[in-house]
Amino acid sequence: MNQEHTFKVEALDAFTYDIFIKMGCPADHARLATDVLLAADLRGIDSHGIARLSGYVRLWEAKRINPNPKIRVVHESPSTAVVDGDSGLGLVVAPKAMEIAINKAKGAGTGWVAVRNSNHFGIAGYHAMMALKHDMIGWAMTNASPLVSPTFSVERLLGTNPICVTIPAGKQPPFVLDMATTTAANGKLEILQRKNKEAPLGWIQTHEGKPSTNPHELKEGGALIPLGSDYEHGSHKGYGLGALVDILSAVLSGANYGPWVPPFVAFLQPPADPVGKGIGHFLGAMRIDAFRPASEFKEHMDKWITRFRSAKTMEGQDRVLIHGDPEREISVQRKEYGIPLNPKVVDDLNDLGIKMGIPFKI
Amino acid sequence: MNQEHTFKVEALDAFTYDIFIKMGCPADHARLATDVLLAADLRGIDSHGIARLSGYVRLWEAKRINPNPKIRVVHESPSTAVVDGDSGLGLVVAPKAMEIAINKAKGAGTGWVAVRNSNHFGIAGYHAMMALKHDMIGWAMTNASPLVSPTFSVERLLGTNPICVTIPAGKQPPFVLDMATTTAANGKLEILQRKNKEAPLGWIQTHEGKPSTNPHELKEGGALIPLGSDYEHGSHKGYGLGALVDILSAVLSGANYGPWVPPFVAFLQPPADPVGKGIGHFLGAMRIDAFRPASEFKEHMDKWITRFRSAKTMEGQDRVLIHGDPEREISVQRKEYGIPLNPKVVDDLNDLGIKMGIPFKI
Repeated sequence: MNQEHTFKVEALDAFTYDIFIKMGCPADHARLATDVLLAADLRGIDSHGIARLSGYVRLWEAKRINPNPKIRVVHESPSTAVVDGDSGLGLVVAPKAMEIAINKAKGAGTGWVAVRNSNHFGIAGYHAMMALKHDMIGWAMTNASPLVSPTFSVERLLGTNPICVTIPAGKQPPFVLDMATTTAANGKLEILQRKNKEAPLGWIQTHEGKPSTNPHELKEGGALIPLGSDYEHGSHKGYGLGALVDILSAVLSGANYGPWVPPFVAFLQPPADPVGKGIGHFLGAMRIDAFRPASEFKEHMDKWITRFRSAKTMEGQDRVLIHGDPEREISVQRKEYGIPLNPKVVDDLNDLGIKMGIPFKI
Repeated sequence: MNQEHTFKVEALDAFTYDIFIKMGCPADHARLATDVLLAADLRGIDSHGIARLSGYVRLWEAKRINPNPKIRVVHESPSTAVVDGDSGLGLVVAPKAMEIAINKAKGAGTGWVAVRNSNHFGIAGYHAMMALKHDMIGWAMTNASPLVSPTFSVERLLGTNPICVTIPAGKQPPFVLDMATTTAANGKLEILQRKNKEAPLGWIQTHEGKPSTNPHELKEGGALIPLGSDYEHGSHKGYGLGALVDILSAVLSGANYGPWVPPFVAFLQPPADPVGKGIGHFLGAMRIDAFRPASEFKEHMDKWITRFRSAKTMEGQDRVLIHGDPEREISVQRKEYGIPLNPKVVDDLNDLGIKMGIPFKI
């Protein structure tokens, strides 16, 4: 009953695209949103992929997502811009904003775009990785629904606020750091919930701020914990990074921040006293040859990566990870063998298909 | 015998300045280096202040620090520059590079400067905070002597590689995140060593990668651990952040990176096969009004800070910290009452004074 079935990427892609079209997205937006969403499934970040599709649809039904947004630059300088996403899908707004950052970097050396009035943008990695083919370093951050308590607090004031930075190499694959600023991202809790397993101490706290191993604790007012787990082990640093992402994404752009960030789930209302518009992202591109010749840089990145990957490991470990390795390896597998989906996700997609008149018969 | 004595800032300042002059620094460089070094003591980051003065002198004696460097831009674009520090004191090279970043930001909206051929730059906070008075967000990073093992490794390949980001506010004091990318910085170990206390698990590993609580473990081939403490609690994220700092500071600038970073202590030789020049920094400035009017931004920062500072705390805690609060409070105290120095540091300064012909009679 808990067995996962595996689905061909092409089939999931076609279904997702049709759903976005049915929502009223223009064809190019539907194509882009589908690519971004499925990039998560391909890279093994299942919590951010097609499992969220019905969530986006519910937000559209609640009129919180505009399927045909006019995405526009509201302010700019040679190396910066602020983009208003017009309540569009973050899956569309973010890559459009990243294109602007890349174009700025072509001219000014770097480009930095703060985005307001957007929605959940899928995996940060997709957007940041757009920079790679231009021999640029890519950055992507976003704020998100408040599920995280700052160190010493029992209130949930921050999202899992990811930071992604992608760095091109030469013969080696690129360095892709894509991390939530919490000890563990929400997706890891969902896996434990499905498996009925306890979480390690240091991931979650109760509504009173006490340690908890209950993966369902968030439903009872508990919170995720910033990277570091506790003050003695540096959770104030994880909290600081989450705060930084919140400020760059939202205070700089004019989006909602902290506890005012609208929830992803449509059954919860956004705060009645917004401090900005929608949720915020922050995207950046740095042209390598605005610093040194790209070929030279990439040779040194190869040397960096090779040295770290070949480092001596502790007993029981077979290698030192380079960021981006695990997701790239999963991606190769899934392109060939398909994407495994949890039965609950399959049920949800079936229901979605019935509701939208697009059968999920794959 | 372990009692700390307190010294007036002005007296420590005059002694430090005279030492830099004796080393052959021009007056303006000596002034700047003194300001940067003592900013650490004032802000309570004792490991990066006057306690390191004799270390800089030993590097100068070993001809690894050039007291009168020609700091120059070797490559630039409207929003970027690479600076060669000519083996100068990082205490001088970094603020000069930050000035360039600020000037770039005045024109292009943002400015990003990668620095090579430099030395230890003191606290990151000094350089990043230079941006604040221009209504800019300031960034400062540096790589450092390899003392940190990547997740699963027993080799020391990274420094404590700090990240500092400073963000101006309106009526509230600025947000100043200044963090090592390790669970604990080296300075915290030094405090434990002096007090003969054990370290918490999760800070240090032995040369075999086993958990350790021995604060002297680094002398026996052990290593500091990236923020997160272990893989289950996200140490691969701390490792990723340390790697990012290394790459931006050194691969982008042409400095040494990873295990090739020259050691701060003069009795250890730099690697015989350098991959670049000196150590590297990365500095940035983002003009707020390249995104939105600074007054508007600062009002929202005030709201952000006020909301987080007033968050409900867990039992036994009286407040939620805003980054920069503790250092600012210590600074107010120390400006008034002076800077406490450990007896070992006082002995070291006495010896230094004798060697340099500048008595430390304060």
